[in-house]
Amino acid sequence: MTKRQIHLGLFILGTGSHVAGWRYPGAFDSFQDLASIQEIGRIAERGKFDLIFMGDNLYADPAAHPSYTLRLEPLTMLSALAVTTSRIGLGATASTTYGDPFSTARAFASLDHISNGRAAWNAVTTSNATSGANFGREHPDHSLRYEIAEEFVDVVKGLWDCWADDAIVADRASGLYIDPAKVRALDHDGKWFKVKGPLNIGRAPQGRPIVLQAGGSAPGQRLAARTADVVFSVVQDFAEAKAQYDGFKALLPAFGRSPSEVTMLPGVMPVVGRTDREAFDKLKLLQSFVSGTNALQILSDRFGTDMSAYDLDGPVPDLGENDAYHAFAKVMLAKARRENMTLRDLYNLTAAARGHWVLCGSAETVADTLQHWFENGAADGFNVMPPYFPAGLDDFVDLVVPILQERGLFRADYEGTTLRDHLGLERPERM
Amino acid sequence: MTKRQIHLGLFILGTGSHVAGWRYPGAFDSFQDLASIQEIGRIAERGKFDLIFMGDNLYADPAAHPSYTLRLEPLTMLSALAVTTSRIGLGATASTTYGDPFSTARAFASLDHISNGRAAWNAVTTSNATSGANFGREHPDHSLRYEIAEEFVDVVKGLWDCWADDAIVADRASGLYIDPAKVRALDHDGKWFKVKGPLNIGRAPQGRPIVLQAGGSAPGQRLAARTADVVFSVVQDFAEAKAQYDGFKALLPAFGRSPSEVTMLPGVMPVVGRTDREAFDKLKLLQSFVSGTNALQILSDRFGTDMSAYDLDGPVPDLGENDAYHAFAKVMLAKARRENMTLRDLYNLTAAARGHWVLCGSAETVADTLQHWFENGAADGFNVMPPYFPAGLDDFVDLVVPILQERGLFRADYEGTTLRDHLGLERPERM
Ligand SMILES: Cc1cc2nc3c(=O)[nH]c(=O)nc-3n(C[C@H](O)[C@H](O)[C@H](O)COP(=O)(O)O)c2cc1C
Ligand SMILES: Cc1cc2nc3c(=O)[nH]c(=O)nc-3n(C[C@H](O)[C@H](O)[C@H](O)COP(=O)(O)O)c2cc1C
Repeated sequence: MTKRQIHLGLFILGTGSHVAGWRYPGAFDSFQDLASIQEIGRIAERGKFDLIFMGDNLYADPAAHPSYTLRLEPLTMLSALAVTTSRIGLGATASTTYGDPFSTARAFASLDHISNGRAAWNAVTTSNATSGANFGREHPDHSLRYEIAEEFVDVVKGLWDCWADDAIVADRASGLYIDPAKVRALDHDGKWFKVKGPLNIGRAPQGRPIVLQAGGSAPGQRLAARTADVVFSVVQDFAEAKAQYDGFKALLPAFGRSPSEVTMLPGVMPVVGRTDREAFDKLKLLQSFVSGTNALQILSDRFGTDMSAYDLDGPVPDLGENDAYHAFAKVMLAKARRENMTLRDLYNLTAAARGHWVLCGSAETVADTLQHWFENGAADGFNVMPPYFPAGLDDFVDLVVPILQERGLFRADYEGTTLRDHLGLERPERM
Repeated sequence: MTKRQIHLGLFILGTGSHVAGWRYPGAFDSFQDLASIQEIGRIAERGKFDLIFMGDNLYADPAAHPSYTLRLEPLTMLSALAVTTSRIGLGATASTTYGDPFSTARAFASLDHISNGRAAWNAVTTSNATSGANFGREHPDHSLRYEIAEEFVDVVKGLWDCWADDAIVADRASGLYIDPAKVRALDHDGKWFKVKGPLNIGRAPQGRPIVLQAGGSAPGQRLAARTADVVFSVVQDFAEAKAQYDGFKALLPAFGRSPSEVTMLPGVMPVVGRTDREAFDKLKLLQSFVSGTNALQILSDRFGTDMSAYDLDGPVPDLGENDAYHAFAKVMLAKARRENMTLRDLYNLTAAARGHWVLCGSAETVADTLQHWFENGAADGFNVMPPYFPAGLDDFVDLVVPILQERGLFRADYEGTTLRDHLGLERPERM
């Protein structure tokens, strides 16, 4: 058996996960510039990441985190990136609440063909309720969103399997292009969707593109356990990560899946220096760029409540249940209570990594911590969220990755060509 | 005043417009292979075409023309092509019947950013009624499709104008990224769509991407006259083309537009040889690859009626009004009547160019004919539909284009960088 190794995803959302990362000296400050994205892709591929993955929102709020509001559309962006990278996986976010399964299945199959087997779909239910207004629709509530998502993902997977791998004959002599016996309709007729099929694109190089999922609530975890290949999670410390890891993996057998079939990647914002001191200075400089309004906006978004009503130097208010971002709200409130934070402390934390774990230190410190999590049942790898680009990613690739490689914890080079290869997953047979 | 010149669009639909073009010796025979598409893009750019444009359907029928059924999804494909071309315009087809305006506006704005101002949207209403079954919806009838399309196009254009050109400040010192005063919601509340906006991507390099339109019916022409920058038409001979050209241009003043603001490009399938004989031999070889079922399928699609019920060697039946492809049905039936065709003659014609004009001859013959049409009020240029790739396009680029260039009828090189530049259109002010 080959040694289990760390998997690395790179999360991009505009210019970096820190709310004011674009203000860092030398940082990319455009969210719409393909050249910057291509440079990020090159660095990530140099770092042998499994995949690069583009988050997405379906609304613009000019007063919020700029990368919540402005960006290239993920599928067009990743298709362009497919041409200037050759190995790294390419994940795009698409909503099960505001998209339709036929178009979604088709676009990801197309990206998989364009990239020779590197496409991944981050299936999200879209938390932000204001999105509905851009589609003339009421935002469905949390449980309804997941009910719809369950059916949506099944339809997409069904559409990906309409064509047999050898359905395209293209026989010049006989004139037979398609063998009709090897193409079938889907004839899906469910509660939320009616989709006949077949899809108008042949089976993808990966058989089916990879499915990513990031829901942290119970229905989100169930959807992931049943349908996803890679799961992102939101954590703030080791104990929490381990509990989430164990909890999630325990769900898999009920769906006939083994724990090793799904790769779980907690999110981490690394702030890396040559020394711990240097790293903390970087974080301090980053935090000095935070403005109250930006941070409060993100906090309000995460909690689904207008947070500007509360006293910044008072305690974190008790907000009760939350329909928007269960996972974020839960881990952030838990941490605030553990550490007796004021609302200002919490918003500083949120500004840094939008609710994700911040890991700040020398390359050795960072590598040690990641290794500890990986080897002690808290992670299969990490969803790396640099605070700014490109230097925030360069630091990780040039300082941390070589240590992980030396320790045999991370690939020295890509061994296969598809994202499935990187994740150690078989190409699925047609269902 | 600079001399008026021919504009050239390249139409791609899989491997070529001829139903059996993929069987031609040496022709590309995959509809899903990015490398082939990139090679086509390079040839078209060498030929200084204004734009390359990807047709689209939203259903798969394994028994039909293979390129009706199988293809890369246009927006992902053209985004990949944006990276390997530098000047040519990039047009993708997207439906106003089965898409939504927010996603459509966003994807084309993204393509425009990715390509530095070369994006075009071919706004189609989707004729084929079986498409509805892939979206769980009844296919709306012809007049309803156009009613929806009118509103759809307006919403998309409105979304493209939500951000002022200078709304993105990105001022590191002050921390101001977006000037909220320069971003506005759309607050569209119409009969078919309710879309709040603003769009989550800044104003496009072209201000607004170019709009292409190809509807031939009266409502299709009205939509084009009001909203399009480029119009494709279906013709079979000069008199018809001139009548269409005059008729369409006459519609423009009522919408406050001048005839030179919209570029009208009749479709033409050129079959080019060094001599007329050589060209006709190529066409004969192509036609020998036609199989009856393929051709009848296209004919049935064009007429919205199952044509296998009719005697192939009998007269072309009188089919009355048609809700699907008005323009195609009209010009094809007119030609059949003019030339006293049997149904077999008509299906041969359809197999060749799916209802478009076939222009077969030496490069001189082809260039003379195009010049005649251009100089005598039948066209502003042509939508070139090679029967197969790459040689069918190479022939046109290497043999016909140089003649047009020598005669001063076509650009020797690109003068600007955006598609608007190629078309001689100003960058629009924000509405
Ligand atoms: C790492 C990570 C990335 C995410 N990316 C997106 C995204 O790009 N777009 C989005 O709408 N939601 C995104 N989410 C939100 C989740 O998909 C999910 O909608 C949210 O956590 C609420 O679901 P839950 O209640 O199951 O946690 C992300 C979550 C995590 C943890
Ligand atoms: C050159 C040309 C290209 C077209 N491309 C497409 C296409 O890619 N997808 C599509 O659904 N319809 C396409 N059409 C069809 C038209 O957009 C339109 O739907 C059809 O002609 C019916 O509208 P009408 O009744 O106004 O003519 C095309 C038509 C022409 C002339």
